[in-house]
Amino acid sequence: MAKDKPVRRPRAEPPKGFRDYFGGDVTERAAMLDQIAKVYHRYGFDALETSGVETVEALGKFLPDVDRPNEGVFAWQDEDKDWLALRYDLTAPLARVYAQYRQDLPTPYRRYAMGPVWRNEKPGPGRFRQFYQCDADTVGAASIAADAEICAMLADCLDEVGIARGDYLVKVNNRKVLNGVMEVAGVLDPSDPDKFAAERGIVLRAIDKLDRLGVDGVRALLTGGRKDESGDFTKGAEMSLHQVDIVMAFVSPKHSSHRVLKAETGQFNVTGGNPLMYKHGNTRSKETARILAQLRELVGDSSVGTDGVNELEQIAELVESQGYGPDRIVIDPSVVRGLGYYTGPVFEAELTFEITDEKGRPQRFGSVAGGGRYDDLVERFTGETVPATGVSIGVDRLLAALRAKGRTAAEAAGPVVVTVMDRDRMADYQSMVADLRNAGIRAEVYLGNPRQFGNQLKYANKRNSPIAIIAGAEEQARGVVQIKDLILGKRIAENASLEEWKDRPSQIEVPRADLVARVRAMLAGQS
Amino acid sequence: MAKDKPVRRPRAEPPKGFRDYFGGDVTERAAMLDQIAKVYHRYGFDALETSGVETVEALGKFLPDVDRPNEGVFAWQDEDKDWLALRYDLTAPLARVYAQYRQDLPTPYRRYAMGPVWRNEKPGPGRFRQFYQCDADTVGAASIAADAEICAMLADCLDEVGIARGDYLVKVNNRKVLNGVMEVAGVLDPSDPDKFAAERGIVLRAIDKLDRLGVDGVRALLTGGRKDESGDFTKGAEMSLHQVDIVMAFVSPKHSSHRVLKAETGQFNVTGGNPLMYKHGNTRSKETARILAQLRELVGDSSVGTDGVNELEQIAELVESQGYGPDRIVIDPSVVRGLGYYTGPVFEAELTFEITDEKGRPQRFGSVAGGGRYDDLVERFTGETVPATGVSIGVDRLLAALRAKGRTAAEAAGPVVVTVMDRDRMADYQSMVADLRNAGIRAEVYLGNPRQFGNQLKYANKRNSPIAIIAGAEEQARGVVQIKDLILGKRIAENASLEEWKDRPSQIEVPRADLVARVRAMLAGQS
Repeated sequence: MAKDKPVRRPRAEPPKGFRDYFGGDVTERAAMLDQIAKVYHRYGFDALETSGVETVEALGKFLPDVDRPNEGVFAWQDEDKDWLALRYDLTAPLARVYAQYRQDLPTPYRRYAMGPVWRNEKPGPGRFRQFYQCDADTVGAASIAADAEICAMLADCLDEVGIARGDYLVKVNNRKVLNGVMEVAGVLDPSDPDKFAAERGIVLRAIDKLDRLGVDGVRALLTGGRKDESGDFTKGAEMSLHQVDIVMAFVSPKHSSHRVLKAETGQFNVTGGNPLMYKHGNTRSKETARILAQLRELVGDSSVGTDGVNELEQIAELVESQGYGPDRIVIDPSVVRGLGYYTGPVFEAELTFEITDEKGRPQRFGSVAGGGRYDDLVERFTGETVPATGVSIGVDRLLAALRAKGRTAAEAAGPVVVTVMDRDRMADYQSMVADLRNAGIRAEVYLGNPRQFGNQLKYANKRNSPIAIIAGAEEQARGVVQIKDLILGKRIAENASLEEWKDRPSQIEVPRADLVARVRAMLAGQS
Repeated sequence: MAKDKPVRRPRAEPPKGFRDYFGGDVTERAAMLDQIAKVYHRYGFDALETSGVETVEALGKFLPDVDRPNEGVFAWQDEDKDWLALRYDLTAPLARVYAQYRQDLPTPYRRYAMGPVWRNEKPGPGRFRQFYQCDADTVGAASIAADAEICAMLADCLDEVGIARGDYLVKVNNRKVLNGVMEVAGVLDPSDPDKFAAERGIVLRAIDKLDRLGVDGVRALLTGGRKDESGDFTKGAEMSLHQVDIVMAFVSPKHSSHRVLKAETGQFNVTGGNPLMYKHGNTRSKETARILAQLRELVGDSSVGTDGVNELEQIAELVESQGYGPDRIVIDPSVVRGLGYYTGPVFEAELTFEITDEKGRPQRFGSVAGGGRYDDLVERFTGETVPATGVSIGVDRLLAALRAKGRTAAEAAGPVVVTVMDRDRMADYQSMVADLRNAGIRAEVYLGNPRQFGNQLKYANKRNSPIAIIAGAEEQARGVVQIKDLILGKRIAENASLEEWKDRPSQIEVPRADLVARVRAMLAGQS
């Protein structure tokens, strides 16, 4: 009936901001999640997997990130008129689960979770609306030892996935210290916590951008405001110069003879900025003590500030007792983390090596994980304040880092391809791949149209196959198969000398019974 | 301001039809997915991970399952007015990806995918709106060898996850044979494929329910219709008795002296129904040949039916050449699979052992995987027909089966718990857990309020901890720690004899330096 009308075909593409992952991208991420789960598990954390879907009521309607208030969730109304939404992180579902099962769960409850989360953000280059999170949190432990444990575990995770010692730093700060500094600077009144809340929000977000904006940019945000390259104006905190000096002394204290301040991060490093130097002698303890003394001075007689410095001191002592030197975990006042809900220690894992950006300029790789203490997330449900602390590892950034360092397999190895010379002998070819697979070797029969043999080798090439097996009627009659070394073949085609060619021809003929042994030997020789 | 108003708190529960998975439920499934991925990979299949979200346009608005036309998807409109939806399976996204990337992908394209899918169905007991699928498909291969490969791979997967030989059967049938039978029965006219489509739909769905409804129920559906226990009436195909006899001969052929027909499944088994008998001698080939001959007779001179029987014969030959006897893969005419889109071979993996239901009655465990050939899924996008075949494993059912057989760890082992006798010595306790972890032992410090020691042991109990470490000021002074065997302790408390108690006290004191070695030895003794 409608057969003459042109057919309107659906577009074969994912929605904007979503993407597909193929082959190695999937398996490398899965392997990394496994490695991280192994570390989390060894620390006594238990797995939790909630659904992608929660009620909007349980999630809260908006992301807690005060810096991006307009970002939302994907939400819809179901038949019962309840609003459902895709989770935007793994912390909100944890709060819901803890509130729901708190009678049955151990206290403290250590849990880890990994999986996709969704953000209804404007997609942009490198910014996707579905991505992986990989979290570990301890709920119900007020002890600062819980925070120290998370820092140690984070360092272990980075070791486990293959980031070399010296290539990462877990940096620790404490919101209470910052609050102490704000108290001293006159933008926090302990008797009226709501006063100056807007100003403090601006301070937090400004410090968080120190990396990107530099000292001058942050100072602008703390005072009259700042216009960015696009001309957009960000309102400032309207602080006095004296107030600004106090805050800036916190994030980037004055140089000392033993320290070099990295202006772009505000991170303390010993001379030359080589964190490995800490390893030797007791430079480390002295350095940590110096930072803590300076912070103590900055917070003056602010009670919350002093608490914060004490907590940092405890964390330093606890991680040291477990053998984590400042080549791996450091106190760093420039770390504030943008999220408004942190209430105590905050942590961030930074990769310290440089990569080159698209314009060839060297850049530090930057943050791959972050977290901190948040003591009021469960309160929404129960009315009780439950202390909690946790960390979230950005697996996709971490994978990108490993690739940048060449630490992952350049290209996944393809299967051995058994070619089809004679369509009627498919059963023979199947028995060959079965033998190879039973020996644990990845192998497949060519299942496309076998007519043109060239297409079969092109296919093997596209599959990145190391070896092709060739067996026609003539070979069958003699009980042999041809084994073609595709990797050597490629190399010979490119640049082999005559000796190499003679020495190790890229194709050998072997008895059918020797197929598995010879393929195994050839694969071993290739790697 | 509004502080006096009662606070309306969000309900701490997931949306209806969604659930949470804890600890071992998460890790056992992850381990099973890993095992299956390993097999898929060994067969040359490449991983693909698409997003949970697709455009409604790309998905198609409804599930392809003709048996449940009202089931839908979770969908919403984004800011650009595009309709987005959560994927309801992994096949629709594969069709989209293949259409999108077909120039770059190898042909044939073997891919596997695992992940959650969502169905906007009425939730019910054991029926969830999010669940896992675990698929492997070959796109672009018309060869029947692709179907045979999927059957072999499915058997390997069941082996790999720990289903014993003899406890599963991969059953193969072919829609073309059924179509041939329908042609003979007069409900398929090759010159007018749309004619009798409704009748054929009823036949398909009726056969698929043979297990549940029995022969009489199916006959009712093929003729006047059937009223179920609730009184609901299902319309019948209004076929004549002669027509019905032809169809029933297909799904449950007459007994022969060498065969026992299992009425509830229509599956052919040799005498006594022990599929293992096939292994010995050539009973197998004779049996398969007999089934094929009978099917050939039933389809008469229907051309599509004869094609179908030939394809089944090829599959039988191919899997036999790879060493898969009918103890693992069988031809079974009762398998039709409900989905309308299958066009050729269909497969189903059934677990053949019995479990007892909630009323203590023995029941076969039933189907845990299924699939088949579907040749027109990509056509929606490109207008080209692309042959494809694949399988989907129901991991949650498979996990349930392993649990029913006691093949998974009864309860996941908890961590060694280092108790806190003295809050000020947290650094010492942390160094103990660090030593244990560095030796690969799962361990944690108690991070709750340490005041009441009893609570710490209760916590260890709740965590299913095998061992607790106890070290107070007195122990520290002497350089020792106490290691408490919680498993032995529990056993002694229950029923130990005095000898056992003396022989192996549940608590030992060891030098701090021996902590790791002694814990390791104790853990080895427990398992």
